[in-house]
Amino acid sequence: MKYTFLRVDPAWRRRDTDARGLDKREFLAACEDFGSDHLLQAFTLVGTRADVDIMLVAETENLDRIHEFHVVLAQSGLMKWCSQPYSFLGLRKGSEYSDDLRLAPRAFRGKYLFVYPFVKTRAWYALPSDERWRIMQDHIKVGREYPQVDNHTTYSFGLDDQEFVVAFDTDDAAAFLDLVQRLRTTEASSFTLRDTPSFTCIATSVERALNALDGEPVPASALEPLTS
Amino acid sequence: MKYTFLRVDPAWRRRDTDARGLDKREFLAACEDFGSDHLLQAFTLVGTRADVDIMLVAETENLDRIHEFHVVLAQSGLMKWCSQPYSFLGLRKGSEYSDDLRLAPRAFRGKYLFVYPFVKTRAWYALPSDERWRIMQDHIKVGREYPQVDNHTTYSFGLDDQEFVVAFDTDDAAAFLDLVQRLRTTEASSFTLRDTPSFTCIATSVERALNALDGEPVPASALEPLTS
Amino acid sequence: MKYTFLRVDPAWRRRDTDARGLDKREFLAACEDFGSDHLLQAFTLVGTRADVDIMLVAETENLDRIHEFHVVLAQSGLMKWCSQPYSFLGLRKGSEYSDDLRLAPRAFRGKYLFVYPFVKTRAWYALPSDERWRIMQDHIKVGREYPQVDNHTTYSFGLDDQEFVVAFDTDDAAAFLDLVQRLRTTEASSFTLRDTPSFTCIATSVERALNALDGEPVPASALEPLTS
Amino acid sequence: MKYTFLRVDPAWRRRDTDARGLDKREFLAACEDFGSDHLLQAFTLVGTRADVDIMLVAETENLDRIHEFHVVLAQSGLMKWCSQPYSFLGLRKGSEYSDDLRLAPRAFRGKYLFVYPFVKTRAWYALPSDERWRIMQDHIKVGREYPQVDNHTTYSFGLDDQEFVVAFDTDDAAAFLDLVQRLRTTEASSFTLRDTPSFTCIATSVERALNALDGEPVPASALEPLTS
Amino acid sequence: MKYTFLRVDPAWRRRDTDARGLDKREFLAACEDFGSDHLLQAFTLVGTRADVDIMLVAETENLDRIHEFHVVLAQSGLMKWCSQPYSFLGLRKGSEYSDDLRLAPRAFRGKYLFVYPFVKTRAWYALPSDERWRIMQDHIKVGREYPQVDNHTTYSFGLDDQEFVVAFDTDDAAAFLDLVQRLRTTEASSFTLRDTPSFTCIATSVERALNALDGEPVPASALEPLTS
Repeated sequence: MKYTFLRVDPAWRRRDTDARGLDKREFLAACEDFGSDHLLQAFTLVGTRADVDIMLVAETENLDRIHEFHVVLAQSGLMKWCSQPYSFLGLRKGSEYSDDLRLAPRAFRGKYLFVYPFVKTRAWYALPSDERWRIMQDHIKVGREYPQVDNHTTYSFGLDDQEFVVAFDTDDAAAFLDLVQRLRTTEASSFTLRDTPSFTCIATSVERALNALDGEPVPASALEPLTS
Repeated sequence: MKYTFLRVDPAWRRRDTDARGLDKREFLAACEDFGSDHLLQAFTLVGTRADVDIMLVAETENLDRIHEFHVVLAQSGLMKWCSQPYSFLGLRKGSEYSDDLRLAPRAFRGKYLFVYPFVKTRAWYALPSDERWRIMQDHIKVGREYPQVDNHTTYSFGLDDQEFVVAFDTDDAAAFLDLVQRLRTTEASSFTLRDTPSFTCIATSVERALNALDGEPVPASALEPLTS
Repeated sequence: MKYTFLRVDPAWRRRDTDARGLDKREFLAACEDFGSDHLLQAFTLVGTRADVDIMLVAETENLDRIHEFHVVLAQSGLMKWCSQPYSFLGLRKGSEYSDDLRLAPRAFRGKYLFVYPFVKTRAWYALPSDERWRIMQDHIKVGREYPQVDNHTTYSFGLDDQEFVVAFDTDDAAAFLDLVQRLRTTEASSFTLRDTPSFTCIATSVERALNALDGEPVPASALEPLTS
Repeated sequence: MKYTFLRVDPAWRRRDTDARGLDKREFLAACEDFGSDHLLQAFTLVGTRADVDIMLVAETENLDRIHEFHVVLAQSGLMKWCSQPYSFLGLRKGSEYSDDLRLAPRAFRGKYLFVYPFVKTRAWYALPSDERWRIMQDHIKVGREYPQVDNHTTYSFGLDDQEFVVAFDTDDAAAFLDLVQRLRTTEASSFTLRDTPSFTCIATSVERALNALDGEPVPASALEPLTS
Repeated sequence: MKYTFLRVDPAWRRRDTDARGLDKREFLAACEDFGSDHLLQAFTLVGTRADVDIMLVAETENLDRIHEFHVVLAQSGLMKWCSQPYSFLGLRKGSEYSDDLRLAPRAFRGKYLFVYPFVKTRAWYALPSDERWRIMQDHIKVGREYPQVDNHTTYSFGLDDQEFVVAFDTDDAAAFLDLVQRLRTTEASSFTLRDTPSFTCIATSVERALNALDGEPVPASALEPLTS
């Protein structure tokens, strides 16, 4: 599972309309090609973050497919003007603290996705496993009080700079903010080493995310997520 | 509530006067359009910070409106030469420690606005809630000794890298400095994890903030804040 | 032993096809020349990291040979458009905790290489040596439960910013992730000061790594490592 | 009180001599205009820091004057090629630990100025005020053993990222180094959270600081500070 | 004593051969002029660090001479394409823990120079001076077991971001690595706050260091240090 955060060089906005149109069509074609047999979702961060314009989530059966997608994407005109300020690589894996099934690919369905990299303190891992299990049950219980917020967690140990990539999928940003503030007072929270940067992502289609770079805003009515 | 910090590429100042004039008029038009039915305030940081020239505060009913404003703003000529060194996203929410009403949108009224992102230590959240309440009363009491300094706090848990965006609105910079130094000795202060970067913002109109980029200084007599 | 991480300026992708072809052929020639009598392996990070495109591992008999290789490489057209976001320099040396032979140069053989710089806390070095030996035995025992993951460690004390460069060579990314997560609960783990950034590298040939910059993806069937 | 640190883009040095001359004359004119009724001093850091070429200290009666000076300065040709790697904003205020008068503006008089931003730990502020007073007396006593080193401290609480801007004015760099090393062993020193970056600034005139960017070195005989 | 670390913009390598030749001759002339009556040594870091190409060590009788050398150097063509990623300023001073004479200027003589900035914890300075003396004797004893590694330490308290600049001069990189690893287990090591970045520098002449930027590698036989 790959979260790719893209930022367009301000100089790209100074190109003429036709060149920008072609740049975007090539980017869209690469996404559509990959999306024909893989899960690919697009989000816009224009207005919510200073350092990111578009975020793509791609899910594949192995690392090689992710690589191939990025090689093709890099050939598009738009990527010749993009930097990647962030990139999170994670694998699905069952949790040792919960029976929730996390292994099957499933699309994000909410209007908003909140994503952050997550690292626990080494003191956490020094606890006995039944103690860690006990502490996590309280954390999980608080989460269940917010059924409108759906948690997706993938694992990055050794593959990337964080231990986990945490994503929360919801239509209700205020409820999510409440949940995060509530979780601060759980015992589990004291074992957090890092949970930033935190990204507020607005679900949209690839095409609309591209248009938001230099054209029309994404209309509110269009904010349902499109999956391939 | 969105705080957007903009910095103009020095190369923009090398463009000719007409091009700069058009770039600024497009930016102003985007702000006037949004400001016709939303709260939008402009501040200049020329001279107070090295890394920011203009700060905009926009308040909207939801995240989608913020997104739409930034899409339109990005189409203006000036934004093709701007970077966003900082951006803070927060929501209004009642405080658990005070009855002060913080939910209603209200404009900043002072000559200066002092803004910083705020994160508390996890030890704070491990305290019992009545203990936190007791500690905050002393903090609030000190704040009330400075009635000329008006506190605006919004919440960012999970939405952005900080927990809170703190903004102090005042005509009296020296009184604000005294207040911050006084607050260091309160018990609450020992639970601060991060309260920087700290921004000294001078209230002005969008038009004057734009002129300060390449033209005339904002005259002292014009330093009353303009709201939409 | 030198790990060199390269990133191509997006502007390079805007050069015409012939110029890019020549730039890549010069880079390849420098690698082939060096590889004729030294160990040189190439990896692609397109799709796994935001900040690196190619990683080269070179092993030489002394520092002067590494220097000479980089002087020649810098003359190639491609390097005139590359930055080096990371670089790790290490020497082979026997471990005081294990009889595993680490002194002889040996090529990486797996589909993936996971690399990170490693620094231990000063509390670790304050332990008596027999205590450190005891703690490492448990760490080594866990590693041996994953025979499909081959550890290569080199030493950087005083030569570079880390103490060790750790590299894990494997065909099985999921097993490696399991191993790293398991190692978090060993006693040795509590003495880790830094183990990031962490790089997921896909083994390939220099030629294919170059083509992945602007052309065809590396086909999965080609992902066996090529050594000089 | 404003410390502004400027760095010239290396590309500026590639402009032709006439263009550089005009760029510098405009910068000088802005400084002379401001300096006609305000305290303005110039320092060169060519050779002492990698990231700064010129430092200006400006003192004004309020923040608005600082803003106006920077608006005018930004219109000069040279500023179109400058970045500001650092900027420190502070206010004069009496010390609670000393009767030394710090409120009146006074020019720096030495050949060298050593400047750094300063933040104390929160443990410091948790001490009773008489305990803090006692600890500071020892610190002040050591400082008085170096009468050739003159301390200027301004306050930045809430206005900028540091709590204090500390400046030491002297002709004797070796004595200053001794003083700082001596102060490390005082009790006050253990409450320092941050005292870097630290800048070695050579006093000169604005004109000579400008010439040091692309022309003749500042002759040793000219190293007396010029004030407006 | 000034350590200046230079990195050439990759775009410089795209200039034509004649322009590069002139750029280098001007740089060399500035070094030869300064070197005619001062100690100046050159090192290449091509291949050992990602972020530095050349390091110059200059020793002068006062700060003004360092400034003058950098003004003249900045006029050379090459410096118009260089950034200075690092710069360390230090003064010679006798050690309170050793009778070794460190005051007289002496050239580096080995094939390699290992340089890093060094900061001790404040807990170190809180120890009584005889306790610090005792702890340092063990540190010094370990150092003396490696007579082929020659330590040069200069003092930067208040002048630059570190407390000391540490340089180790040797022909034997592996012995130096052993020494640093051995020193980790001394009591003194637990009082280290920062000892990175760490630079592996290959001794050469200015001329050869310049040629390594875009031309021939420095032949191994030429790796004896040249001093002015």
